[in-house]
Amino acid sequence: MNSLTDQPIGRVVPAPEGHISGEQLEQARTARRQFMGKALAMGAGAVAAGRAVAAPKGEDAILKLPAHTKGLGKPVAALGYGVPSQWEGNLQRRESPGLTRVSQASVSFCPLQGLFGIITPSGLHFERHHQGWWDIDPSQHRLMVNGLVKRQRVFTMDDLMRLPSVSRIHFIECGANSGPEWGNVALPTVQYTHGMISCAEFTGVLLSTLLEMCGVDKKNGKYVLAEGADGSSMTRTLAMDRAMDDVVVAWGMNGEMLRPENGYPLRLVVPGVQGVSWVKYLRRIEVGDQRYGTKDESIHYVDLMPDGTHRQYTSIQECKSVITTPSGGQTLLDQGYYNVTGLAWSGRGSVKRVDVSVDGGRNWRTARLETPVLSKALTRFNIDWVWDGKPAILMSRAIDSTGYVQPSLNALRAVRGTRSIYHNNAIKSWRVGSNGEVTNVQVNG
Amino acid sequence: MNSLTDQPIGRVVPAPEGHISGEQLEQARTARRQFMGKALAMGAGAVAAGRAVAAPKGEDAILKLPAHTKGLGKPVAALGYGVPSQWEGNLQRRESPGLTRVSQASVSFCPLQGLFGIITPSGLHFERHHQGWWDIDPSQHRLMVNGLVKRQRVFTMDDLMRLPSVSRIHFIECGANSGPEWGNVALPTVQYTHGMISCAEFTGVLLSTLLEMCGVDKKNGKYVLAEGADGSSMTRTLAMDRAMDDVVVAWGMNGEMLRPENGYPLRLVVPGVQGVSWVKYLRRIEVGDQRYGTKDESIHYVDLMPDGTHRQYTSIQECKSVITTPSGGQTLLDQGYYNVTGLAWSGRGSVKRVDVSVDGGRNWRTARLETPVLSKALTRFNIDWVWDGKPAILMSRAIDSTGYVQPSLNALRAVRGTRSIYHNNAIKSWRVGSNGEVTNVQVNG
Repeated sequence: MNSLTDQPIGRVVPAPEGHISGEQLEQARTARRQFMGKALAMGAGAVAAGRAVAAPKGEDAILKLPAHTKGLGKPVAALGYGVPSQWEGNLQRRESPGLTRVSQASVSFCPLQGLFGIITPSGLHFERHHQGWWDIDPSQHRLMVNGLVKRQRVFTMDDLMRLPSVSRIHFIECGANSGPEWGNVALPTVQYTHGMISCAEFTGVLLSTLLEMCGVDKKNGKYVLAEGADGSSMTRTLAMDRAMDDVVVAWGMNGEMLRPENGYPLRLVVPGVQGVSWVKYLRRIEVGDQRYGTKDESIHYVDLMPDGTHRQYTSIQECKSVITTPSGGQTLLDQGYYNVTGLAWSGRGSVKRVDVSVDGGRNWRTARLETPVLSKALTRFNIDWVWDGKPAILMSRAIDSTGYVQPSLNALRAVRGTRSIYHNNAIKSWRVGSNGEVTNVQVNG
Repeated sequence: MNSLTDQPIGRVVPAPEGHISGEQLEQARTARRQFMGKALAMGAGAVAAGRAVAAPKGEDAILKLPAHTKGLGKPVAALGYGVPSQWEGNLQRRESPGLTRVSQASVSFCPLQGLFGIITPSGLHFERHHQGWWDIDPSQHRLMVNGLVKRQRVFTMDDLMRLPSVSRIHFIECGANSGPEWGNVALPTVQYTHGMISCAEFTGVLLSTLLEMCGVDKKNGKYVLAEGADGSSMTRTLAMDRAMDDVVVAWGMNGEMLRPENGYPLRLVVPGVQGVSWVKYLRRIEVGDQRYGTKDESIHYVDLMPDGTHRQYTSIQECKSVITTPSGGQTLLDQGYYNVTGLAWSGRGSVKRVDVSVDGGRNWRTARLETPVLSKALTRFNIDWVWDGKPAILMSRAIDSTGYVQPSLNALRAVRGTRSIYHNNAIKSWRVGSNGEVTNVQVNG
């Protein structure tokens, strides 16, 4: 795939120094209306805005004060564990009806269009299950390490949690994310096109620490098998050099224990690698001398190439990006200034640059990257845009620390054909109509 | 306070290179039992551990498989917004009964002893209310900018959310955090001694962007007043140079909209500054030519000094750290290896180093800092410790990027006396008894 770094890069217009100025913003801000999508997500209707100050006076003003300004609110710790506002109920992860035959072997997609920054709230982390999810009693859960090790071991959760721990922010992306785009299936929103990705701070013990404790056979042990405890018998092979690198046996996610649907109480974190290798409900690590060729890596999660062969063991999620606002299903309700924002990531390192086009790839400007920019983590980008009310095509293109450039859909298809399901990291385009409606469009470029 | 950088630093034993080895870990790992606190938090009882592998065979093995290994689990999106495991119900923020006369003007503390990494889950973010909390309709909420500006403005939430946005990870700490420690009130757990701190990724528009849009009077405008919409009429003054620096008018927290108890739909984020200045339910920003001297900055949140004067406008949270595990209320149930972990932070920049002592401050070793290490954000530290079963006193001491060293309690008292409530950033000590019980102890050093 790295041959794609050779593709031509469109003309990049240098970004203006610093932000657009306050005066410019004010001039550009003719709008009285907003993204419909955002407004709906907030339960907000049409609202007057940007108007001059004209406050009510005297007794009238007091009478018109809202209840929360006059009264006594709810007590602290009314909720020992807090929940979102009642006004945010529309922001949910959602299943794609009919995608699979049963909901226990399906996906619920992360609502990227309503999220900010790089941390995915755990309540909205995408789900992908092969036989449903469980809430396993951690006091009964065990992790076995066996195979080519000197000391086979069974660990309790308490055993694991007193070991040296690390905390790291990483993205997890399903290998099938954006799969429908291979075949010109234009799903309506970014939640469905790109919502099989999330990013969290994971805490656990390095797999290398466990393998060292068990006296791993470094001469003959070439591969590691990871096995989950749920009914799907999820099993995946990792090469030993990767297993000894940055793989984490994790119990923590975003500061607390993993959520049940994300593998509570224990999952493998394999930074940069597709989600199926992040085995949930992790119960066994076996060291072997060859690839295991399990069902989940020989039949599933393989790419059918144009010559009819299967591309297997393709685990690294290549550099990719997507604009999340404005995106499909949202509506620009007036001309003027907009903050265009999105996410970029690479399974090979950090995001070096993101360029954005508003004219279907003819001209590109470099976006601002929010810090921190971390290896194998989501990176948030923002860029100013003043919409003139004419049709526009918005695209983002990420470049990672290895120099790899996110490819166009055509460049990807030239190598991989159109019969794949997995590993689609093509540039994504959104069309803004003159009526402000944003729709999914494929620009082959 | 910076004179405290002159305090003598105890002897630092250089940290061993890299992690403790797998062999060493295995040797140190005699334990079959664990932190009682962690075990309770997990709902787990005593469990056998570290035992040799002895799996049941044949039909027995199948019969003994747990239900989750044989059956079909719950479907995806069973919860459009997910919640923690049923086994984690004990991990909650908690009010300190009797701390205040009514629960609407109280605190609920963040359970630091059960958290990992640096991101505080939004459901466990500490709360401090002055007149209770509200869930305000965002479509009705307004932010006024007035005073010494050319163009007074009222913004809707939609107006704000289309402006250039930033996302940044910062801690927020109540000025009264660790207050009881001034007077030798030894609260039992780190949740109550240090639980008025949390850390999240905040998203919003820079206050400087709004002020520029409104044409702030840079000649006469020396101060900014921030005012909240709830009944407590929370109002705080910011100096103009700070207002134009890194202050954010934020709607996002950890990727989603702010939680109601944390100021939904809009709060001020004032990095490095005590929480009371992070005005919740933010409804007004006024530019003025002098300090406002509001009740919340002239009567409250002031420190009573030994000479009877008040120390006012002390807003920056100085460098501080605390060990969260092992900490008060937990019990070490056997000798052997433990991962000692905690949090460090500074309102003046980033954490440069954290030293840990296990002998009451006579010897210090430098802990490992987890990345990312960010300015004005929590930093997680970890260090290896092999407990020999004898009484021990654990302490951590942080040093920030300005060279400031976290002071001992005595050093702090020498300057500030003992009648303060606010701004206690002294080194915290935990005593481990020979029975493994960890208790709050004050080592004056």
